[in-house]
Amino acid sequence: MKDVLHQLLNQCIEKGTEEDLHALTYLLEGFQKKIDKPYTQYIDGLLHMERKIDKEKKTCEITVPLNAVWNNSLDIVHGGITATLLDTVMGTAINAILKEGYGAVTNQLNIHYIAPGTGDTLRCKAEIIHHGAKTAVISGEVFRDDGKKIAHGTGTFFIIQKKG
Amino acid sequence: MKDVLHQLLNQCIEKGTEEDLHALTYLLEGFQKKIDKPYTQYIDGLLHMERKIDKEKKTCEITVPLNAVWNNSLDIVHGGITATLLDTVMGTAINAILKEGYGAVTNQLNIHYIAPGTGDTLRCKAEIIHHGAKTAVISGEVFRDDGKKIAHGTGTFFIIQKKG
Amino acid sequence: MKDVLHQLLNQCIEKGTEEDLHALTYLLEGFQKKIDKPYTQYIDGLLHMERKIDKEKKTCEITVPLNAVWNNSLDIVHGGITATLLDTVMGTAINAILKEGYGAVTNQLNIHYIAPGTGDTLRCKAEIIHHGAKTAVISGEVFRDDGKKIAHGTGTFFIIQKKG
Amino acid sequence: MKDVLHQLLNQCIEKGTEEDLHALTYLLEGFQKKIDKPYTQYIDGLLHMERKIDKEKKTCEITVPLNAVWNNSLDIVHGGITATLLDTVMGTAINAILKEGYGAVTNQLNIHYIAPGTGDTLRCKAEIIHHGAKTAVISGEVFRDDGKKIAHGTGTFFIIQKKG
Repeated sequence: MKDVLHQLLNQCIEKGTEEDLHALTYLLEGFQKKIDKPYTQYIDGLLHMERKIDKEKKTCEITVPLNAVWNNSLDIVHGGITATLLDTVMGTAINAILKEGYGAVTNQLNIHYIAPGTGDTLRCKAEIIHHGAKTAVISGEVFRDDGKKIAHGTGTFFIIQKKG
Repeated sequence: MKDVLHQLLNQCIEKGTEEDLHALTYLLEGFQKKIDKPYTQYIDGLLHMERKIDKEKKTCEITVPLNAVWNNSLDIVHGGITATLLDTVMGTAINAILKEGYGAVTNQLNIHYIAPGTGDTLRCKAEIIHHGAKTAVISGEVFRDDGKKIAHGTGTFFIIQKKG
Repeated sequence: MKDVLHQLLNQCIEKGTEEDLHALTYLLEGFQKKIDKPYTQYIDGLLHMERKIDKEKKTCEITVPLNAVWNNSLDIVHGGITATLLDTVMGTAINAILKEGYGAVTNQLNIHYIAPGTGDTLRCKAEIIHHGAKTAVISGEVFRDDGKKIAHGTGTFFIIQKKG
Repeated sequence: MKDVLHQLLNQCIEKGTEEDLHALTYLLEGFQKKIDKPYTQYIDGLLHMERKIDKEKKTCEITVPLNAVWNNSLDIVHGGITATLLDTVMGTAINAILKEGYGAVTNQLNIHYIAPGTGDTLRCKAEIIHHGAKTAVISGEVFRDDGKKIAHGTGTFFIIQKKG
């Protein structure tokens, strides 16, 4: 597999533009973070997520550096990536305050896209609107580094008992 | 940059598990597809998207092979990836029938998650519910390879004139 | 209470415009339908709902005559009334196929408004997208009498055991 | 028309239960409010809406007394009525701060139902999340008189120029 990997990388280096190789560096650095750090999902590494959880205030904040690899064909952040950030920040917020042995899964996600995602970083934060025995409703927002809000979302999460 | 890339890859190979290296192979193969093929977004390559567009029926279908790299900590497809697929298949469906010089951007996205995303591939398809002069409403569904529907979504898209 | 009612009616008749009295006639006729017919909700009477349920196809259709009483200040059907129709037609569709002793309650409702609600009648129909043990996902559409679709919605319903 | 109205009322009085007549009194009192007060919509009167608008804080609050007439067959407030309240409070909040000659119409509405609507009154409030040139995104919440939040919603509104 090692040879295959180096061969793939050589082909990318050979044919790729400078922007491609920048994007690839960003991706590999992100992948390495998953291997090195205690991330439980590859996506967290690939997006270089930095998390801040405040259990008392029941809020969660995630910051990510932007890279062309996440852009759509209009050269702004892909709506699916914004959705991934919102889903992750909301899920992290609720999981942080659940009792041992319980987890939350997304049941419904609603996103309002407000402004184009551009700049160097995105910052997103979540707030718990409702925390019941079986469900939670959470809101989340995504901001550019110039402070502009680019998306607002809400989600319904089901609280489930994790399998031993 | 080439040296940095090979160094990064070596570090991943050194510390990564077999699953990590499988995931990395999948990612590099996907990245290579973006470089080789006429994909306009890296995400399309990374997800190894195969598109089928039927302009007459106004439908679009996308198939992707699954890989652990897109899983969440419960080992099922991350909700943000399902959102990315829905946003992409809906956007592709409407962009395919817009007049030259026009594009569609997501304004609102709503997703109902129905079943866990597992298996070898995901197939998603979109249908245009409303196509007006300034907005479009589109629905989309995602299926596992065992035929089970895992998500249903709808979105509002704004139709904009592309900058020359 | 009878005197109070007649007094109220006299005051309405005295001060109301002709449009007001038309609206009031429509309301009272609707209220009477609730008293006479086996409607289980006042709202069904007030809106003069006519239901058609097809248990085999798992679809439901509701038709209502329009009246100025349900209009907003722009003289088109109030978005809340369209929401009421969608919620009702979806709920009716799922309740029609649940086992004895079970009912469905709306957990999440998403509506795309497409065109102004005008004309003499509105027709709405629902289709079951997913029917699980604990939840159902249903879509609904509302049409004017000229055939124009004015709204598309989806909802998540929780299936609960009714109290004996 | 007056005779028809009194005849209709007599039939309701004759066949209706005491609860029916209470509901009818509430409806007629609400209808009268539309005739007497500067309400621009019948629905505002029928629901006995009391509005408080704070233009500086960009918030709006509406309180309504509850009545069996708005209940569903489970004897809790109909989801469509909760939707009507949310749509109204959000629309009122944005309309209050628009320039002369402009109005807002609902384009998309998303509602999370959290707890059953019961008690004597419902209080709802809206907050403007985004106010752009062409669109606004607004959130709204509905509370029971015991303080329990029963619903949280968000909506996209289109800002349009009113016809002279």
